[in-house]
Amino acid sequence: MLAVQELHQLLGEYIQGHQFSNAPRALYEPVDYILSLGGKRVRPGLLLMAYNMYQEDVTDALPAAFAIELFHNFSLLHDDIMDEAPLRRGKETVHMKYGTNSGILSGDVMLIYVYKYLNMIKDKSHLDRVLSIFNQVAIDVCEGQQYDMNFEEQRKVSIEEYLKMIELKTAVLLGGALQIGALIGGSSEEDAQLLYDFGRYVGIAFQLQDDILDTYGDPEKFGKKTGGDIVQNKKTYLVLKTLELADEDGKNSLNALMSVETKDEVSKIAQVKALFDKYQVLQHAETLKMTYQKKAFEKLNALSVKKDKTQVINDLATDLLSREF
Amino acid sequence: MLAVQELHQLLGEYIQGHQFSNAPRALYEPVDYILSLGGKRVRPGLLLMAYNMYQEDVTDALPAAFAIELFHNFSLLHDDIMDEAPLRRGKETVHMKYGTNSGILSGDVMLIYVYKYLNMIKDKSHLDRVLSIFNQVAIDVCEGQQYDMNFEEQRKVSIEEYLKMIELKTAVLLGGALQIGALIGGSSEEDAQLLYDFGRYVGIAFQLQDDILDTYGDPEKFGKKTGGDIVQNKKTYLVLKTLELADEDGKNSLNALMSVETKDEVSKIAQVKALFDKYQVLQHAETLKMTYQKKAFEKLNALSVKKDKTQVINDLATDLLSREF
Repeated sequence: MLAVQELHQLLGEYIQGHQFSNAPRALYEPVDYILSLGGKRVRPGLLLMAYNMYQEDVTDALPAAFAIELFHNFSLLHDDIMDEAPLRRGKETVHMKYGTNSGILSGDVMLIYVYKYLNMIKDKSHLDRVLSIFNQVAIDVCEGQQYDMNFEEQRKVSIEEYLKMIELKTAVLLGGALQIGALIGGSSEEDAQLLYDFGRYVGIAFQLQDDILDTYGDPEKFGKKTGGDIVQNKKTYLVLKTLELADEDGKNSLNALMSVETKDEVSKIAQVKALFDKYQVLQHAETLKMTYQKKAFEKLNALSVKKDKTQVINDLATDLLSREF
Repeated sequence: MLAVQELHQLLGEYIQGHQFSNAPRALYEPVDYILSLGGKRVRPGLLLMAYNMYQEDVTDALPAAFAIELFHNFSLLHDDIMDEAPLRRGKETVHMKYGTNSGILSGDVMLIYVYKYLNMIKDKSHLDRVLSIFNQVAIDVCEGQQYDMNFEEQRKVSIEEYLKMIELKTAVLLGGALQIGALIGGSSEEDAQLLYDFGRYVGIAFQLQDDILDTYGDPEKFGKKTGGDIVQNKKTYLVLKTLELADEDGKNSLNALMSVETKDEVSKIAQVKALFDKYQVLQHAETLKMTYQKKAFEKLNALSVKKDKTQVINDLATDLLSREF
């Protein structure tokens, strides 16, 4: 078993060795740029870890891991255009730096390269299955992004709809990365499915944690200013749960606060937080997060492999889901 | 052998039977919309014709044919956003009707569905090869679109660069459709390569014809107003050849005409056409088109199959390349 640092080292070298140095530069420079912004490489890391549970040498899994990272960055690139986001990982987004047309076309070519790298799977007998899994995940991600955009216009969003959206937009890709890694490593279909569900539940728990941290996190530990979701009127779990629990007055107050753009961000954040606190939605969010976290680890523990094989994945997920706030 | 009308009938029924009726509608309605705009379905038709040279029943090739049509429409959809085109086949473009964000995301999901349909190939032993061919074609199309956008900003474009651009942006997809159809039909690699080259040459000839028709076509037969390329200052073959042949005065005149937007379109078209005529670039374009057309049919005639098998493809290509003007 390779440690998480060793896997990331291999992955980093692979990405470094597969830069998009070809012509036309206007097409490929944005691809290199977004990949150079880094990130935690969680998804390709999970793919390699799942593979490594069944195979000692992860070299043959690197192209598929890179494909998953490319897909993730493709979706960030196009989402940033749609969200008109100025920054990504603290740097200019692709469309701000290179223009929207470049953002669209470079994203498109990235998505094609995803399949080019997936097609480098050594044992071609896996190809059909890997593509089926990946295509469904990729379709889910697009549908999740569409629901997320719909919610901005939609007056009423149920918690069930919200959970479905974060599952599609964020969680299934973690699941798919693990499932693909396991299958090409030679796992049974049952193990691969357990790992998919594990990743999916971890993803939902992680997104709920993200909602919590955005409001209640320690800015220094969280790595960015808190209250951003509130300022942007985002319909997070905290908002939706408050709307579910609040009386008419509470609902009206929150809806009123969330229907305007404000200059006085500090006061808006304080007022919305007071409503969250009144209905104890932080506690509800933590309980729900724990429910998904528990479901996740049940799946992991049900795998057919020896306990020590799951250690690296177990530790990474625990780490991801225990950010302090 | 099925006649071209029979193939189009089967294709039309398949497309009709595979509408994107699922949720979320905001994501899939634009996909149904662009597919409903019709078009000549040349690319999937070519795939089926190539397949039909080696297999009597084309049913199993329909998903791959649909994949090719989806890809073509995906590329039109995203290109129309980049080109800010208001109309496509005489109807509103997707981004005009549904907004740019919908255009981006619905295009993305179409590209994923391309691979979903390609993955429905019955004999999975072809999958690796089909994906390799398709991925290269799809990458080429993106690179071609990038070069086309580059040329708008680029002061000097050589004819060699221009031919490379139309090959990538337009011609390779015709070649790829034929190559994939042949291979999944059970052709030899040699035949599949000959058909790829045939399609590629036909595509280049067709694009040169398109340049010619846009200036010299009979508006009634051509189906749209002539002179559009001139008004839009497009660097077509006719322009680039004139710049190559003209003396300093001629070059300066053409560059001056092409560096402004004009209100008096009729006069601009007449002046540019006078320069084209002075250097006889229509004749040059026709000669070059014929060169590619000849190369194309040499490839077709080199196939290992009996002459009568190539009749349908031969007739279609002849028809495509003999539009009157």
